[in-house]
Amino acid sequence: MKAKAQKNVVVIGGGTGTFVVLRGLKNYPFNLSAIVSMSDSGGSNRRIRDEFGLLPTSDIRQCLVALSDENGGVGLLRKLFMYRFEKGKGIAGMTFGNLFMAALTDIVGSQEEAIRQTGKVLRIKGAVVPVTLTETNLYATYEDGTIVKEEHLIDEPVHDGRLRIVKANLEPAARPNPEAINAIKHADMVIIGPGDLYTSLLPNLLVSHIADALRETRGTIVYVLNLMTKFGQTYNFKASDHLRVLEDTIGKSIQYVIVNSQPLPTHALAIYAKYHERPVVNDLSKRSYYRVIEAPLINRMLYKKSSSDALIRSLIRHNSDRLAAVLAAIIGRENS
Amino acid sequence: MKAKAQKNVVVIGGGTGTFVVLRGLKNYPFNLSAIVSMSDSGGSNRRIRDEFGLLPTSDIRQCLVALSDENGGVGLLRKLFMYRFEKGKGIAGMTFGNLFMAALTDIVGSQEEAIRQTGKVLRIKGAVVPVTLTETNLYATYEDGTIVKEEHLIDEPVHDGRLRIVKANLEPAARPNPEAINAIKHADMVIIGPGDLYTSLLPNLLVSHIADALRETRGTIVYVLNLMTKFGQTYNFKASDHLRVLEDTIGKSIQYVIVNSQPLPTHALAIYAKYHERPVVNDLSKRSYYRVIEAPLINRMLYKKSSSDALIRSLIRHNSDRLAAVLAAIIGRENS
Repeated sequence: MKAKAQKNVVVIGGGTGTFVVLRGLKNYPFNLSAIVSMSDSGGSNRRIRDEFGLLPTSDIRQCLVALSDENGGVGLLRKLFMYRFEKGKGIAGMTFGNLFMAALTDIVGSQEEAIRQTGKVLRIKGAVVPVTLTETNLYATYEDGTIVKEEHLIDEPVHDGRLRIVKANLEPAARPNPEAINAIKHADMVIIGPGDLYTSLLPNLLVSHIADALRETRGTIVYVLNLMTKFGQTYNFKASDHLRVLEDTIGKSIQYVIVNSQPLPTHALAIYAKYHERPVVNDLSKRSYYRVIEAPLINRMLYKKSSSDALIRSLIRHNSDRLAAVLAAIIGRENS
Repeated sequence: MKAKAQKNVVVIGGGTGTFVVLRGLKNYPFNLSAIVSMSDSGGSNRRIRDEFGLLPTSDIRQCLVALSDENGGVGLLRKLFMYRFEKGKGIAGMTFGNLFMAALTDIVGSQEEAIRQTGKVLRIKGAVVPVTLTETNLYATYEDGTIVKEEHLIDEPVHDGRLRIVKANLEPAARPNPEAINAIKHADMVIIGPGDLYTSLLPNLLVSHIADALRETRGTIVYVLNLMTKFGQTYNFKASDHLRVLEDTIGKSIQYVIVNSQPLPTHALAIYAKYHERPVVNDLSKRSYYRVIEAPLINRMLYKKSSSDALIRSLIRHNSDRLAAVLAAIIGRENS
């Protein structure tokens, strides 16, 4: 039996799914690190990159909010961080949090330091770690030979969204943030997902040496399976398809797969269906080198697209607390 | 002798001069209220008014920063509040503090509440009180009959800056903020200035019932004389000219006038001279219904115009600590 030291838990992703995982896990006595993809180039991030010359900040911002203190006196700042301007020429559509971090970067001299300082202001539990500090873009090559550059064009497909991606890569090649490598190497558990396979998860795993670190770590690798397929990148993907892409990228097998067992609300499914998106079919039971944990993991509340929000966000999400409870149980089991 | 209750000190103004007074006074055990003019319509404020539909926030922001806690953990937020964006289409030139308050107004539902909440976040000592919540503009009628609407056009004159203003008024007429009336009525001391006579001080005194409250208050009325004349509004004004305009507007005599006795740095004077601005000549000694306090009050440091700053700021300023010491001495004397 190990000593009762705080467990090092690493969450890899960046989008809404990571927000949900972090928000639940911060209530446990873990030493949390969120490793965040840095290749987004849509909306606010496009402007942050082009006009401010910074790395994208939207996913960083979301993770900071997820880990922020919800009980203390930072409630107002937390709300501000989630706020998106609806007025102002050149300002409408920008998030307050991104402007906060842009201003702070100018004041403190580096974006890394600005992220750390923002974490202090929001009294976050844990650390938010950009997977790379290289300015890079995601490229996807589809089965018909089409190459799409930039994450947001894969996310909101301009190509035939039914096509499969045969290759994903970052250009230029991205060097890893040493903090990310360090966190993975010393992890007791690494949680991948939930999140868009090609646009939230792979942009982390494709950064050089991240896959190496995942192969080397002794931490338990857990994958939280997505609830829905995504047109443009995982059209008609089954659970095994997701797993295959991840394992091929990492070069190592995943130990736990967490799957929702709860039926999804039919009125939400009808909306997804319009976008050619369906619940991910669980075809994993027949395989055995990993453990599949099935549990009711859906949030009752449905999320709506905000009027000023350029992106279509997930309507159905995992429930933070339930998901965190399952993850915590695995950590307990693996370390007992 | 009165009991040792905290003295109520009210500072009326809004611009850089008020910043200087507040920053010094916050170190004394006074109950401070800063009453701030609300008719500015230049630069960032123009956009705050036109695009966000809010009252101007720049002077409010400056006062909040002046009163903020400089020792505690709010140092970073304080720096952010003073930050002006230099990049971003539609964002460059805006101050972070103004965007902060615009976002917060949307979140909390009113600008008044947003000011209060911002004060809490910055841990201010005292209160920042908009003199009015009416959307109004300053009009100046010059001796040649020219009428200039909008504060910033008086500040950066488009007319012949040597002309005297014969009438200043707010249109539409502005109703007073009850908090401002209340603060003046219960004041032990009311400090007017330093600040641009027509564009920082009068926009407060011209709000309806503010002059009435000043006539009614039993608090000592103190005027801090400006160091320099201002082309476009107080060209060639002597001390008595400043005083006459103020007393005519209030309808009551001022009890103390605080005058700098220290020579001004010649290299700075040369820059001012280019803009037809000169040190205010003290011609007050022969009059007697008020007391003139002369003291060395200049700050050693010269202030420079920032590259992204649309306004020409004062190069020579009062020293916060010295000015506060003189003001505190008057309060002590009047209440002993």
